[in-house]
Amino acid sequence: MIRPNRSLDAIPTSEPFIGPERLMRERGLGALLRLGANESAFGPSPLAVAAMAGELPHQSWYGDPDSFELREALAKRWSCTREELLVTSGIDDLLGLVVRCYLEPGESAVASAGTYPTFAYHAIGHGGRIVGVPYREDGRPDLSQLVRAAHSSRATLCYLANPDNPSGSFFDGDTIARLRSELPQATLLLLDEAYGEFVDSADALDERVVPGVVRARTFSKVYGLAGARIGYAVAPAELLAPLLKVRLQYGVNRNAQIGGLAALHDASFVREVVAQNSAGLAQYVALGRELGVPTLPSRTNFLCFDFATAERAAAVLDALLARGVWTRRPGVAPLDRYVRVTVGDAAARATFAAELRAVSAGALA
Amino acid sequence: MIRPNRSLDAIPTSEPFIGPERLMRERGLGALLRLGANESAFGPSPLAVAAMAGELPHQSWYGDPDSFELREALAKRWSCTREELLVTSGIDDLLGLVVRCYLEPGESAVASAGTYPTFAYHAIGHGGRIVGVPYREDGRPDLSQLVRAAHSSRATLCYLANPDNPSGSFFDGDTIARLRSELPQATLLLLDEAYGEFVDSADALDERVVPGVVRARTFSKVYGLAGARIGYAVAPAELLAPLLKVRLQYGVNRNAQIGGLAALHDASFVREVVAQNSAGLAQYVALGRELGVPTLPSRTNFLCFDFATAERAAAVLDALLARGVWTRRPGVAPLDRYVRVTVGDAAARATFAAELRAVSAGALA
Repeated sequence: MIRPNRSLDAIPTSEPFIGPERLMRERGLGALLRLGANESAFGPSPLAVAAMAGELPHQSWYGDPDSFELREALAKRWSCTREELLVTSGIDDLLGLVVRCYLEPGESAVASAGTYPTFAYHAIGHGGRIVGVPYREDGRPDLSQLVRAAHSSRATLCYLANPDNPSGSFFDGDTIARLRSELPQATLLLLDEAYGEFVDSADALDERVVPGVVRARTFSKVYGLAGARIGYAVAPAELLAPLLKVRLQYGVNRNAQIGGLAALHDASFVREVVAQNSAGLAQYVALGRELGVPTLPSRTNFLCFDFATAERAAAVLDALLARGVWTRRPGVAPLDRYVRVTVGDAAARATFAAELRAVSAGALA
Repeated sequence: MIRPNRSLDAIPTSEPFIGPERLMRERGLGALLRLGANESAFGPSPLAVAAMAGELPHQSWYGDPDSFELREALAKRWSCTREELLVTSGIDDLLGLVVRCYLEPGESAVASAGTYPTFAYHAIGHGGRIVGVPYREDGRPDLSQLVRAAHSSRATLCYLANPDNPSGSFFDGDTIARLRSELPQATLLLLDEAYGEFVDSADALDERVVPGVVRARTFSKVYGLAGARIGYAVAPAELLAPLLKVRLQYGVNRNAQIGGLAALHDASFVREVVAQNSAGLAQYVALGRELGVPTLPSRTNFLCFDFATAERAAAVLDALLARGVWTRRPGVAPLDRYVRVTVGDAAARATFAAELRAVSAGALA
């Protein structure tokens, strides 16, 4: 009989995320306020929409497998060569490629326990071992423990989201440089900077190629193109070379390439999104203060409300969902006492505030 | 130092295809008539374009990871369950998933030597062994030798494109059913039906789930959505289950899901494309007859011109390219004496005919 590879037997059928569409179907909800996946409330740049619309009649053509024009534009922005850039079908695709190329079955990868789950999904899917390092009580990744775990487990990969998802916390460029220097030289640092554009460049790691680091960037967040599935790696060319042996050559869709290129050139739109997002974060902080619910500092387009216990956080999440507001609760302690809420536009924030007040009166009483 | 997995050492850096954009850059060509990748000359359905355009402002939302609505629609068409359908980021993505799940490193996969190369790319990339069965002299896959090779190599996978790419040939449903019955029971038959919609349903394998077979379908060809990257598998649920453990959950882009669904419902557009394509094929056959160049029967949106020797075919391909007409020549004998030409629209066919006449006067003299 036909039998799948034995290595798959040990891999559970799991899903990093349940999509909101399934939640709606299963709960019989007609509409859902999407504040659970950190999708941009401010949409794609109008320039990107116009560029994509103009190209739709040419969807019968494949995209350029080299993503040449986009890499040219990115190379200018990052002051690097095209060979130091790889365009992928979103960061998820890139995480899978890095794991496939740098994590042999049985080898260890280090990550914060409860961080963005798709990295662990790939690591387990490729037969690797995930060494999960607990978050600190204040919700921040524990860098010194990540370093220690990388040494003790002889990890070939260390994954860090910075700014972090789901906590929203951020380490500045100097701290990340120190992390790299303290990790074993043989450990690749996979730095997921999906929310990097929300951080002032003065605080962040310079926009450049860093030895021993694969930096993952995306058009899904500040650029508002999550549905288009496009992201990229910035890394030394020799770290990217193995990925070119196995990547899906025609994996990036044409519309995403065109939209991404247009979005990249719309700097004023990005500034406007960042400004509106900051205003939204401030409103969430004020809402938390009003309700007596502490919030975590965030350098992203989402914010965690701290409901003190996992039980209370779960009750709030469920109550919000029943009222048509989709948020998310991290699954692992100590983060499981948070409810993570995406910054909505003004109308969505008003709805969320009203619903959280109503829920609080009940669940938090 | 950071070192990629040792298993990658044996894998060459290769590309199944060079994209036309790179050809243009390297040859300094300002424009290229795209007749080399079997992209539909008739574009996407206007209904699909309208649906995709309407959704562009929502590209900030991820697509439904379950592709629920599209699978619902496909389940009706195929009289099967949603669990017997998996939507992927084009057939290339699906081929990679099937290889990853059913071909252990060192195991053998059987395919015609010179068929659609992305299957072999994935098989080699996953450490498998490709057993290539030569095409017959008439350009058709050699089914009895494929069966023999599958038995002798204990192949876990047998790949067949039907209709075939690059030859354009086709085996009817009864022949495919016989192939399945003659293959080892432990061999999964991966049937790439990218061009299946160009074949009269009376001749083809029934539109149903076939035990022991993963059927690959795409929106890239007759539906004109190659750039959108969307395809699907039709197979027994137990054959698809392992793929769900490792697939990129959010890999299919939102616009592709929306465009694919709209395209599926535009049956009259598909009929029109098939009719125009048939007219185009007939013109190519007449052109070959006029120039004394035999053509192969084709049940696809492309056709092979037989230039008798690999040298002549290469000369014709190069001469056409120098004149701005991009076609393709299969790389492996006995197919390497063909030039494969996509059916263009009426204007493109007229240009191609004029250029081939001009080239023939030279290269074929």
